[in-house]
Amino acid sequence: MSAAEESFRSSEPRGRSAEGRLIGGLLKTFGDPPVALVLANGERIAPRGGDPVATVRLKDRGVLLALLRDPHLAFGDLYSEGRIDIDGDLVGLLEAVYRASARAEERRSLLRRLSGALHRPRRNSLAGSRDNIHHHYDIGNQFYTLWLGRTMAYTCAYYPQESTTLDEAQAAKMDHICRKLRLKAGETVVEAGFGWGTLALHMARHYGVKVRAFNISHEQVRFARERAAAEGLADRIEYVEDDYRNISGHYDAFVSVGMLEHVGVENYPALGEVAQRSIGPNGRGLIHSIGRNRPARLHPWIERRIFPGAEPPSLSQMMDLFEPLDLSVLDVENLRLHYARTLTHWLELFEASAERVRGMFDEKFVRMWRLYLAGSIAAFTTGTLQLFQVVFAPRENNDIPATRAHLYT
Amino acid sequence: MSAAEESFRSSEPRGRSAEGRLIGGLLKTFGDPPVALVLANGERIAPRGGDPVATVRLKDRGVLLALLRDPHLAFGDLYSEGRIDIDGDLVGLLEAVYRASARAEERRSLLRRLSGALHRPRRNSLAGSRDNIHHHYDIGNQFYTLWLGRTMAYTCAYYPQESTTLDEAQAAKMDHICRKLRLKAGETVVEAGFGWGTLALHMARHYGVKVRAFNISHEQVRFARERAAAEGLADRIEYVEDDYRNISGHYDAFVSVGMLEHVGVENYPALGEVAQRSIGPNGRGLIHSIGRNRPARLHPWIERRIFPGAEPPSLSQMMDLFEPLDLSVLDVENLRLHYARTLTHWLELFEASAERVRGMFDEKFVRMWRLYLAGSIAAFTTGTLQLFQVVFAPRENNDIPATRAHLYT
Repeated sequence: MSAAEESFRSSEPRGRSAEGRLIGGLLKTFGDPPVALVLANGERIAPRGGDPVATVRLKDRGVLLALLRDPHLAFGDLYSEGRIDIDGDLVGLLEAVYRASARAEERRSLLRRLSGALHRPRRNSLAGSRDNIHHHYDIGNQFYTLWLGRTMAYTCAYYPQESTTLDEAQAAKMDHICRKLRLKAGETVVEAGFGWGTLALHMARHYGVKVRAFNISHEQVRFARERAAAEGLADRIEYVEDDYRNISGHYDAFVSVGMLEHVGVENYPALGEVAQRSIGPNGRGLIHSIGRNRPARLHPWIERRIFPGAEPPSLSQMMDLFEPLDLSVLDVENLRLHYARTLTHWLELFEASAERVRGMFDEKFVRMWRLYLAGSIAAFTTGTLQLFQVVFAPRENNDIPATRAHLYT
Repeated sequence: MSAAEESFRSSEPRGRSAEGRLIGGLLKTFGDPPVALVLANGERIAPRGGDPVATVRLKDRGVLLALLRDPHLAFGDLYSEGRIDIDGDLVGLLEAVYRASARAEERRSLLRRLSGALHRPRRNSLAGSRDNIHHHYDIGNQFYTLWLGRTMAYTCAYYPQESTTLDEAQAAKMDHICRKLRLKAGETVVEAGFGWGTLALHMARHYGVKVRAFNISHEQVRFARERAAAEGLADRIEYVEDDYRNISGHYDAFVSVGMLEHVGVENYPALGEVAQRSIGPNGRGLIHSIGRNRPARLHPWIERRIFPGAEPPSLSQMMDLFEPLDLSVLDVENLRLHYARTLTHWLELFEASAERVRGMFDEKFVRMWRLYLAGSIAAFTTGTLQLFQVVFAPRENNDIPATRAHLYT
């Protein structure tokens, strides 16, 4: 037997069933993450060398077939349905898979990588955007109040200290953004995509600006308007239920937090033009978005079940917003570990309310949402996803801060 | 006469000579900047409405023809030769031209813009780079000592305060970079392109690191080695006379300040690979470079006479360094107004030494260098050029600072 044959045989443990060998092959395409699997027949597939991070239990014989057919999509669905269970640390498991997959990906051929293009995100036409946004954001404000914390901000928070709480970190994020935009009392701001209206309220209350904010999620618009009225700020904030492409008027600043992920790269030049015409030659703008180190599709399960149409951009893709229009990028900050911490806080609150969520929806929904939050933590801790805050201004605007020290005093 | 004819005639002032009309047409292609011209025959072409920023004097009849043939290249040459003179503020004049040209450029067709591709920068092969770098950096260290200040740093300084001096600002820039890299005593740093060795000396002396630094300018290498020996730091700095592509070894940090402009975009993936293999999975890096809002050729006169082979990248072009290798961009800071101030300080020192420079070279060289420095100020104040500092790290490196507050304490 040649050395090559010897090596091949020793990587294929003897005594495995046909199913065991199939799952072994599947793990290999994911870079052999340090996880154990238990098949429906009780057979255990353990990683060679070292303890597994967690154990994945396949609960029936159909699971294996579904995983072999489309592992990325099937894993999430089967976990949601309870046909896959995890013993141990779910986040740790997903981190291990992300890390091993990234290493395997680097070894893989270009051809294999291109096959990722099979999962095209849904198009974001005006009508398509409405459907896509409705899918995620209109499932009930009540549900989101259970785990987003008091601010109802559904974007990466900013933790100046180790001890910062979720609510404090959301307020700190908003202050960080307002300082980056150098908002002054009496100025006007246009916001593209406003969630439940949190940032607009914060800007109006603490920075004395007037805000016109756009969002196409009907549930969120209703919620935000009630909030502004209850907080006595309705005269300083106009929440508009409309698409960012229909923004008109002139403002001192443009801001968009957590919308770009849903815009689709083909629409970046249009969004850039909206920003440019909104602020004219003397304004400034900020875009806060989930991103990537390089262009790639969102995880197909997340794209299908959680965020249809979503597509986090790489920085070179984001530049399609600015470069065609000669806008100057002044500052880019990557906050990915802040998003991992934000999501960890959200997952804790979610788990504390799991019983109520089960009552509002069902067990499958609880498991789906848990997997989504845990997987997002893992994506940010492993650098699979990034979080970019980009400050920009028209080329000719010299009223820009000399240094960034003012953000930290 | 129709309204259109009336408007056409009033934009073509009566009484101008044929030459006057030609120069009027030329000014139009530059967006009619608010400057006056005086032709060799004494005829004055003044901007309609408002005082001119400065007056351009064409000293002989050949000047006009040369300007019409290739205005970008000829203006610099003719000014250097003294066949064009400027009455008034040279920087202000160039700013006015940059601003008006940018507005005209926006109105111009794609076809016209593409014609800029006629001026291709010189290739940066290993041998080509050596020629290109020799052209600018090996004209005599003595010359550069006259106007760069005591630090001999030939890159954008950093001015934390209005009152910061040039030498203080160069030291502050180096501290800013060392803090961004979070250098700790005992660590190792590799530097690609080290100028006269200033940053390596600063890092070794103030941060206790060992530095291996690469540069292909023979004059600079010699100067830097003497400096390190004189300052008793020769045991902590190795100045290598070699191309960045030949960097080998493993280091805690990679840094390159003011070299990327000379690398050429086609070589960015190679430079990215050098950075990646130098720092491995746990390091961090910083690249400091002149840049642009969008891809464009360097001004042809600067490229031909001052910096052969130079090509300041846009951010999307810079991403060719990072994206193919899955490197994470952590921080981008745009310091363009700091470069305008640095260049203003250099120009002041240069003018104070103009007599000595004339003795070392000739009057043509003095005028050429003055135009280069003044034009660079104008390029940065008008946003024609940008200055990007980019901090990056491998995707899997989680030992990254939580916030940027540590840069400002």
